[in-house]
Amino acid sequence: MLGNIGQELTDSQAMALALHAARCGQRGANPLVGAVVLSPENRVLSVGWHRGAGTPHAEADALARAHQAGTDLRGARMLVTLEPCNHTGRTGPCSHAVAEAGIRELIYAYADTTAEASGGADYLRSRGVQVSHGLLEQEAYELNARWFAAAGRRPFITAKIASSLDGFIAAADGSSKWITGPEARADGHTLRARADAILVGTGTVKADNPQLTARIDGQLAPRQPLRAVMGHTLPPHSHLAAETLAGKALHLATRDPRIAAAELYSRGVRHLMIEGGPTVLSAFLAANLVDELNWYRAPLLLGAGRAAVTDLGVDTLSQAHHWQLDDLGLQPALRQLGADTATHLLLTDQQGTPAPSER
Amino acid sequence: MLGNIGQELTDSQAMALALHAARCGQRGANPLVGAVVLSPENRVLSVGWHRGAGTPHAEADALARAHQAGTDLRGARMLVTLEPCNHTGRTGPCSHAVAEAGIRELIYAYADTTAEASGGADYLRSRGVQVSHGLLEQEAYELNARWFAAAGRRPFITAKIASSLDGFIAAADGSSKWITGPEARADGHTLRARADAILVGTGTVKADNPQLTARIDGQLAPRQPLRAVMGHTLPPHSHLAAETLAGKALHLATRDPRIAAAELYSRGVRHLMIEGGPTVLSAFLAANLVDELNWYRAPLLLGAGRAAVTDLGVDTLSQAHHWQLDDLGLQPALRQLGADTATHLLLTDQQGTPAPSER
Repeated sequence: MLGNIGQELTDSQAMALALHAARCGQRGANPLVGAVVLSPENRVLSVGWHRGAGTPHAEADALARAHQAGTDLRGARMLVTLEPCNHTGRTGPCSHAVAEAGIRELIYAYADTTAEASGGADYLRSRGVQVSHGLLEQEAYELNARWFAAAGRRPFITAKIASSLDGFIAAADGSSKWITGPEARADGHTLRARADAILVGTGTVKADNPQLTARIDGQLAPRQPLRAVMGHTLPPHSHLAAETLAGKALHLATRDPRIAAAELYSRGVRHLMIEGGPTVLSAFLAANLVDELNWYRAPLLLGAGRAAVTDLGVDTLSQAHHWQLDDLGLQPALRQLGADTATHLLLTDQQGTPAPSER
Repeated sequence: MLGNIGQELTDSQAMALALHAARCGQRGANPLVGAVVLSPENRVLSVGWHRGAGTPHAEADALARAHQAGTDLRGARMLVTLEPCNHTGRTGPCSHAVAEAGIRELIYAYADTTAEASGGADYLRSRGVQVSHGLLEQEAYELNARWFAAAGRRPFITAKIASSLDGFIAAADGSSKWITGPEARADGHTLRARADAILVGTGTVKADNPQLTARIDGQLAPRQPLRAVMGHTLPPHSHLAAETLAGKALHLATRDPRIAAAELYSRGVRHLMIEGGPTVLSAFLAANLVDELNWYRAPLLLGAGRAAVTDLGVDTLSQAHHWQLDDLGLQPALRQLGADTATHLLLTDQQGTPAPSER
């Protein structure tokens, strides 16, 4: 579908194509965004999407592809799933790039309300570009509902759990290496490599003394996330205590997930990954601060041990925390990784930001 | 692949085709079995497989398909994944059917060692059919390893669990209706309808007062499994106590899963489904008596409540019970059912019957 350059599309079809392209991306510091450039005759000139923090935004990706193909963009129209950003982050402002490319009309689905990115539509209008929005707004909102819930206030928060079938991350005697197999562990490392920071609790430091490095194919990933430990007492002889002294890791002397998230956000962390243990994870879960959950399960039964999730303050079924399988992205919500399984979930709107109609 | 009538195959290819056909069946009272009939020129005349208890065996299915097509079977050869049965169960002995059809040579992969079914090869030889075995024996064994572990001694045992993501079947206050959604519940009912008996513990009767009927599309299934309750005291005012008095359900006054399984086997139960609660399920699991596990998970987190599995006597990770995703059958081991997931697992050989080479 993404390769149908030259196909004639209605605006709705083009926005649906942009949404489909957006789904090719990966969740994290930035929302999933897709963009389609149409010729004045409504033929597809290029399709772009955002691949993750530090890579071009969808609009820039679509424009770059068109330029690479030597396509004339004068008089062209762009449909994009989110209002183009107006600020210089790790990449330049998309609003400027769109105007400079000679795009005549821009239609976006959902308005970017984050203070640091909004204003793109106004800028484009000031440059004479015809701008409208709202086409497939609900779908565009739902694709990134959890990102919008966090945006501008705290990092987008991903949690990783590796457990037995019955939800234990360690046996009764504390043994936990390795519950999941090499494929699941490698997948977990790719998650680490995408995050801005990894957070564990002091209990996990005490129990496992982790290094929290991100490794790809056994090698240190080129980009290493900030390593953070939360809790009052950091075990002094741990790897992470040494790294903290060396200024390479961060000790957050709090048990409050809101304080920890705000502190990390103030240090520029836009995508936080929580690796445990149960106390830290459950504190974030109880506060509805986990947006995305990657649950790796080994085909083992333990019957007892250290539970992945502890008290959430839920007494009755109607108070349960509601999640949904993330089948919005292109990666399947359920995967088999070697002998293990991976389940990818998003917190539902029930606990999140109200839908657009309610705002 | 199953439709390639007329294709010329080697014996190994034909046995692989028979194994593939076997995978189309469903686990339960009988093993998964497939059969291929070849012409004297080694062309596929028909392919058959067993669909589950009460339906024709694979050999009979393959012969019936050939007869329906008006195929001349004189001088034909049959390849079947398991030694043809020699007894009259819910269907007639396959050994007789094969001999009567005029099959000249039969090759089976794995020998049926159950006292009540074995002897098929000897019978066929006595009727002048050339018989050999061992082709793809290991694959044929592995396809039904758990069935062989149970065969002739106890029912094949399936367990069903419906839990939250973190493995709770009820919240802290006992509320559990409904953790999983309608699609998962309907799938659970199709499992019930395939079993010879459903077993719960007296604790589940006390907590939920279940009827344990199998329903398909909201209607009572034509075949209802025997309903059995295990434990010392059956709550007198329960549905199942009334049904027991009426002779329509069975009370097994024991807490020993081996005794319960043997008693049900002696009453003709060849496929037992355990529906809970945690005490009964964990007793069967701890005794390595659960062959197959169907775990339905709702996308909910509870953090506390009634755990699906309780103490298994596992203290350290190396003692964990090892399972494998059932990707041997054609149904995926991982399925999305509405908002829920289903994971289909088999107990590994580690706790089961030794593989053929070790016997």
